[in-house]
Amino acid sequence: MDSTRDALEFPDSDRGFLEPQLPPHDGSTPRPDMPFTTLTFATSLDSSLALSPGARTVLSGPQSKAMTHYLRSRHDGILIGVGTAVADDPGLNCRIAGVGGYGGEGLEGQPRPIVIDPSARWDFSDDSKLFQLCTQGRGRAPWIVTTLQEPPAEKKALLEKYGGMFITLDKIDWSDLLVTLQSNGLRSVMIEGGAQVINSLLEPSNMSLIDRVIITIAPTWLGQGGVVVSPARRFDIEGKAISAARLTDVKWYPFGEDVVLCGQMRV
Amino acid sequence: MDSTRDALEFPDSDRGFLEPQLPPHDGSTPRPDMPFTTLTFATSLDSSLALSPGARTVLSGPQSKAMTHYLRSRHDGILIGVGTAVADDPGLNCRIAGVGGYGGEGLEGQPRPIVIDPSARWDFSDDSKLFQLCTQGRGRAPWIVTTLQEPPAEKKALLEKYGGMFITLDKIDWSDLLVTLQSNGLRSVMIEGGAQVINSLLEPSNMSLIDRVIITIAPTWLGQGGVVVSPARRFDIEGKAISAARLTDVKWYPFGEDVVLCGQMRV
Repeated sequence: MDSTRDALEFPDSDRGFLEPQLPPHDGSTPRPDMPFTTLTFATSLDSSLALSPGARTVLSGPQSKAMTHYLRSRHDGILIGVGTAVADDPGLNCRIAGVGGYGGEGLEGQPRPIVIDPSARWDFSDDSKLFQLCTQGRGRAPWIVTTLQEPPAEKKALLEKYGGMFITLDKIDWSDLLVTLQSNGLRSVMIEGGAQVINSLLEPSNMSLIDRVIITIAPTWLGQGGVVVSPARRFDIEGKAISAARLTDVKWYPFGEDVVLCGQMRV
Repeated sequence: MDSTRDALEFPDSDRGFLEPQLPPHDGSTPRPDMPFTTLTFATSLDSSLALSPGARTVLSGPQSKAMTHYLRSRHDGILIGVGTAVADDPGLNCRIAGVGGYGGEGLEGQPRPIVIDPSARWDFSDDSKLFQLCTQGRGRAPWIVTTLQEPPAEKKALLEKYGGMFITLDKIDWSDLLVTLQSNGLRSVMIEGGAQVINSLLEPSNMSLIDRVIITIAPTWLGQGGVVVSPARRFDIEGKAISAARLTDVKWYPFGEDVVLCGQMRV
């Protein structure tokens, strides 16, 4: 197989605006015990990630797709919720030309996929895209974060065959999870979705754990009934509804037909 | 009273990017029998216009507010739905320095407010902000579009006292309405909301009536339960959900902390 097949180019001219938003090259982190965290996703104008769970929804243009893969090349891990794993059968690898499997050596530049799956319900197999990419030397095996003390033996064996593992936590708590990922060697994590994961991180108790937010917005309305990013309603001490979350240090970059919004959570 | 009190400045440097989006200076229109139509509004990242109907929600920054008033100075009419009239008690005038009432002559540059109110339920009075601005010589009296053959006599008298009028249509149909507005002398109309009006115009049967879309997006999530812009779900001939509406000829302008999106409906 030609190792550069399917490789994506993300030109230097587009990399400049992202650089100040990315994890430092020296691997340093804002908090000593946690990785640098980037929350990133693409929505429609009506804040939908997809028409329905699992519906392949082409929202953003090819430039934005290449950007996502470039961002992956700059993070040690990519994190998703089990809903996305079940619905999308995602590859969760990095296809930027020059990373391992796409012209580069070994798995250099390939991020570690992390799937939050409290009850270990994801029914993966050798045919799952993620494991097929492992077989092709084009991606790493996932770490699956669960609350089961004893994950199913069969799943555990399959996962470990590819070099993945289950990580057991007492409960799914973002802070504990990030500490655990850092202790397993990840210095940066890109959190990609789905809506439940994103909305949970936009809540007041979690937003301080996010170092950067990078959102692509496409000039499309998916319409009512989509998979929507919108955090839980928030109230002031008098019980009056207030804005749920706000970004600060905001930069907008027109990018093809889309716009890329970079910012930090105002905590 | 100092006639320039409360006047807003919108600098020339910011006007350039809007110019190609605005109704032509010569009053020509894309369709012979209808005004040039601009659909414009400001939303949060989660596509909310407001935290709840009638809640004063400061979404966009001062630059965006001045832009809205500049846009009003470039249209003959401003249209809203009755929900917005009831909830917000809006002024619907133009406060750009130099227009009538804000340093200029008479009512020069003041747009005609148009309220869609099928059952004439808006309970306005001399104290309504819109009529107070009329009294101050800072705005025009509204035209209220209803389906009642005989609008309530008392409301009619009050309205006509200020120079406004009821317009009766058999039913509220966007096409008929726009033809009627043109026949009453309006060559351009800016449609400002609320969500029901906007969502209705984003539907396939109406979207061709919109000449330009200008949306301001603020880097905030209002949270679940807001007043949301999202058109009805759309399906292809096989019954599969598809994107409800899409813009073309898209331009994004970073504007303070917000972004302004200009485009045309892809029909």
